[in-house]
Amino acid sequence: FDMSINGRMQVDSMTNVSGSSSVANATGANTTNQLADGAGIRRARIGVEGSYYKDFGYKFEYDFARGNGSVASGITDAYVSWKGYDPLNIKVGQFKEPFSLEEATSNRYLTFIERNNVVNAFSDNDNAYKVGLGVGYSQPRWTANLALQTESVGSGGASSSTSSVNTMGNANRNNGSGDTGWGVTGRVTGLPWYEDKTKFLHVGLSGSERQINNNFAANGSLSTGGISFGNQLNTNVDRTFILNTGNLTTGQTRMAQRIARFGGETALVYGPFSAQAEYIQANVSGRGYNDEALNGWYGYTSYFLTGESRAYKTSTGAWDRIKPKQNFNTHGGWGAWEIAAGYDYLNLVDGNINGGRATTGKVGLNWYPNSHIRLMANFIHALNIDTKGMAARSAAYNSSNFDVVEMRAQVDW
Amino acid sequence: FDMSINGRMQVDSMTNVSGSSSVANATGANTTNQLADGAGIRRARIGVEGSYYKDFGYKFEYDFARGNGSVASGITDAYVSWKGYDPLNIKVGQFKEPFSLEEATSNRYLTFIERNNVVNAFSDNDNAYKVGLGVGYSQPRWTANLALQTESVGSGGASSSTSSVNTMGNANRNNGSGDTGWGVTGRVTGLPWYEDKTKFLHVGLSGSERQINNNFAANGSLSTGGISFGNQLNTNVDRTFILNTGNLTTGQTRMAQRIARFGGETALVYGPFSAQAEYIQANVSGRGYNDEALNGWYGYTSYFLTGESRAYKTSTGAWDRIKPKQNFNTHGGWGAWEIAAGYDYLNLVDGNINGGRATTGKVGLNWYPNSHIRLMANFIHALNIDTKGMAARSAAYNSSNFDVVEMRAQVDW
Amino acid sequence: FDMSINGRMQVDSMTNVSGSSSVANATGANTTNQLADGAGIRRARIGVEGSYYKDFGYKFEYDFARGNGSVASGITDAYVSWKGYDPLNIKVGQFKEPFSLEEATSNRYLTFIERNNVVNAFSDNDNAYKVGLGVGYSQPRWTANLALQTESVGSGGASSSTSSVNTMGNANRNNGSGDTGWGVTGRVTGLPWYEDKTKFLHVGLSGSERQINNNFAANGSLSTGGISFGNQLNTNVDRTFILNTGNLTTGQTRMAQRIARFGGETALVYGPFSAQAEYIQANVSGRGYNDEALNGWYGYTSYFLTGESRAYKTSTGAWDRIKPKQNFNTHGGWGAWEIAAGYDYLNLVDGNINGGRATTGKVGLNWYPNSHIRLMANFIHALNIDTKGMAARSAAYNSSNFDVVEMRAQVDW
Repeated sequence: FDMSINGRMQVDSMTNVSGSSSVANATGANTTNQLADGAGIRRARIGVEGSYYKDFGYKFEYDFARGNGSVASGITDAYVSWKGYDPLNIKVGQFKEPFSLEEATSNRYLTFIERNNVVNAFSDNDNAYKVGLGVGYSQPRWTANLALQTESVGSGGASSSTSSVNTMGNANRNNGSGDTGWGVTGRVTGLPWYEDKTKFLHVGLSGSERQINNNFAANGSLSTGGISFGNQLNTNVDRTFILNTGNLTTGQTRMAQRIARFGGETALVYGPFSAQAEYIQANVSGRGYNDEALNGWYGYTSYFLTGESRAYKTSTGAWDRIKPKQNFNTHGGWGAWEIAAGYDYLNLVDGNINGGRATTGKVGLNWYPNSHIRLMANFIHALNIDTKGMAARSAAYNSSNFDVVEMRAQVDW
Repeated sequence: FDMSINGRMQVDSMTNVSGSSSVANATGANTTNQLADGAGIRRARIGVEGSYYKDFGYKFEYDFARGNGSVASGITDAYVSWKGYDPLNIKVGQFKEPFSLEEATSNRYLTFIERNNVVNAFSDNDNAYKVGLGVGYSQPRWTANLALQTESVGSGGASSSTSSVNTMGNANRNNGSGDTGWGVTGRVTGLPWYEDKTKFLHVGLSGSERQINNNFAANGSLSTGGISFGNQLNTNVDRTFILNTGNLTTGQTRMAQRIARFGGETALVYGPFSAQAEYIQANVSGRGYNDEALNGWYGYTSYFLTGESRAYKTSTGAWDRIKPKQNFNTHGGWGAWEIAAGYDYLNLVDGNINGGRATTGKVGLNWYPNSHIRLMANFIHALNIDTKGMAARSAAYNSSNFDVVEMRAQVDW
Repeated sequence: FDMSINGRMQVDSMTNVSGSSSVANATGANTTNQLADGAGIRRARIGVEGSYYKDFGYKFEYDFARGNGSVASGITDAYVSWKGYDPLNIKVGQFKEPFSLEEATSNRYLTFIERNNVVNAFSDNDNAYKVGLGVGYSQPRWTANLALQTESVGSGGASSSTSSVNTMGNANRNNGSGDTGWGVTGRVTGLPWYEDKTKFLHVGLSGSERQINNNFAANGSLSTGGISFGNQLNTNVDRTFILNTGNLTTGQTRMAQRIARFGGETALVYGPFSAQAEYIQANVSGRGYNDEALNGWYGYTSYFLTGESRAYKTSTGAWDRIKPKQNFNTHGGWGAWEIAAGYDYLNLVDGNINGGRATTGKVGLNWYPNSHIRLMANFIHALNIDTKGMAARSAAYNSSNFDVVEMRAQVDW
């Protein structure tokens, strides 16, 4: 019987450094459209994990900085696992859907402060932690994961903007709130080229088919359910959704019933240099829809000035903890220093859907004094925002080229 | 000085397997009356307990899956204890009221997924964890517990349906919210026949007298307070109250002022076989009431196919952890297997109160791979639901014979 | 790498023992103005702290009894620290503003159950835990702390009454909620006379300048922000704000823009005897204000009947844990016993501000069975409450001399 306590904290600040001219002024009873400056706790998690008789394990983790709308929505991982036929692994409970390299990577090991827009919009914002059954298998050169999952515990999640409509989590489905939606999601990854831990090529594919809960009153009006896709363009302290499809279910004649998602991912590590790219597409079908396709991609490179390589965990097919060659101290150690630059594109416009389009460019500087502390600085520049015809707040950002500076202090234990 | 961390997780699913014909259709702006299918985290608790200089102890436990309406309502146990004259034990803080065998038993050791309806309606749903002062005494063959308690911390609890009216917990009673209600509750148990740990007879009696907080505005209209009894017929993911008295205080002419509760309990263990039954009655008095009596009972039997006996803790007079004779593993161990069948009856109709009546039958299968993991499956069949004259959602279930399948994966540490 | 778990619990009760004649009756749809009786959990905290390679540290603490309005508002400490040039200490994250002796003292070591009114009104009620950057320095005979801080995480805090208007915490500043307010706060303390640990004189000064977030809609109406000062006169289970300025920002013509605070503190320990006093003033400036000055002070003495001395921590310039000379047990040990008496005055009236004035007197009895358990009893007597011209609930207390008995059981680990 072993049990251990773990946790993490991320303290973030965000400053809107663009002149106020690039975003349209608010009118009437509306407040400013400018992104707010501020500081806050992005994540504050405590977790417990352990095992019984080798084969059985469990993990529970809570994020005290989440939970808008419901206490339970701060729950991230909450599952029981069994690995009697190792490396086969079975999980029951709430865990992350197996989709996308950047989503599979712990937020402690992300290169930039926030996940790229396309990953954020199509997996993270809807709360990637969902309740269900998962099966995983891993070999030194490849992994495969498949999950049958329903919805997230609690309503919304920390990542939801107030404009999210995915508000009926599955904590208690009382009084005619409808059956949970459910879906099947899978991801396979491989290392077609692998010299050693510092020189390799990663590739992967993800796929998901999701049934949406649309719950109508007896008279046909929409009661709960539906789904929306939104995005806050790499921002975090002020997470205003600039791109936003709104609820794709508005009534019985326009109703999103199934979402199919596909993703392709690749990453290269070559000594201190690394590069990573993903493409994700989400197809909407249902009444009033013609298989509309929303999509996006991102690419970025990073370089360790101090010679480290990005760390990769073969059992998860995702990034792992960086250990500096030399820890920082007052006697001459500098820790690890990493620079990064990236570009991403997100398109939420097709057919009957107008959620806007945007591209952003960004540069980042990461300092790892030691393996458990990290300080990060990001500069985000918005490019080519197209939000014509959208609701007032989103429309105000049309053609805006706003600039944001973000900083983070992170510790985990 | 010792301190330890403990916790539990229960992952539940529920499927409504009856044809849709047995429940009346919704009308107008109402959503379906059918119970929803879904999966969720039923309980996710982390606790800390410890002691100082042998005599002083403390326990704090939080349920991250509770807390509708208030963060503090996730608190379960939160008390300081003293046992300087062991086996006398004194507690100050929030702890469970000493009432009923099934309520006194940890939800980790229940035979079925949910507590029986009568225990649920008269003790658990109103949040059995309340703030006050408790005194306990135990001997090898008997126990006695007495508690003077006010109300639960926070508003409502995880077990409350949205129809609960017991919404003024005692976290902060600002701005004329009235004095807390309070009550005295006691339970005595004994073992009149005790051969050994696998052959004995348990009996017990509980009693409680409770003063209800009814808080009126200066003009006489009800402001906060009152009490309701409701029940969700053994369901958990969808906890819609099918039986429901509504608030027993509706104004100055109909006002529940005191609730007296009585309970009798018995249980028999004879090797792998066990049987258990309880009767509980709640009498309502106050303006506009004539000592109306609500009541119910349940009985069930269980049998361990693998030869274990139900475990009993003499210091609490309640059930304890099952340790399989052989743990499950991939080399031939099967763990412990238990089958159970039960029946229960709940009557919330008398005099001026119409909260409905129902009986349910159920069968269960429990698998204990080891002492800390349990998988459960229950089949619930509703019988003789009588909700004539009640509000629309309850009335829709009148004469329904719905069937529900529930499953649970449980771990504790 | 070290990590430890800590926590505390405080179980409180409050009884209004004054005759009902001294507070004006409610009228119409209002509920009683009398303070409510009740019991509850005042604080229930679990924390994690640890360090990496000596120089880096972290602390996270959550209060499960806080969190009205938002889960995140239960977060108290959440910071990463560095002390590479010890005794210089740098913190990033959420931590208490360095202001006032009584605020700097852990609530576990307060002499009375609640902080004195002036400390409560000018520091604690607005949530003294704020996100920012702090620098501290300490020597055996003096300490200095300086912090640049924004706002608290989440909305409001446990200490807020519902009348608090400081509701825009900095968890997510979406949709035009405005930049965070921010401020600079500092405190210096010294020991001009120090014989030994039981005989010394402490003095200190605090100062703070704070920019208030006032967020207006495009049409000029107030949207979010502003600040209020309120106080509940040493009560805790019922924390009704009797004194209350209301939001000092009501529109564009009356807008609090800066709050300057000053405080002076002193304390004397002479064997079992101790005395402590503080004066705090808050000056309001902005449109429609003429540097209005609100202020207050308190003084109290305490005496250990069992001979202990109040414990002082030189590195924080604040009070520390009491260790009884002899622990309580059933073989003749009595623990430590302390008696205390105090007086305090709070004035929230000046120029355009009418938040009322009050003085209270109080006596207390503390029993420390051992170093980690404490039982407390306080008697509070309100004197000279002047709330003329204020809103109905506050005005009802004008000239009231109400009496309250409070009790607490406390444990920490």
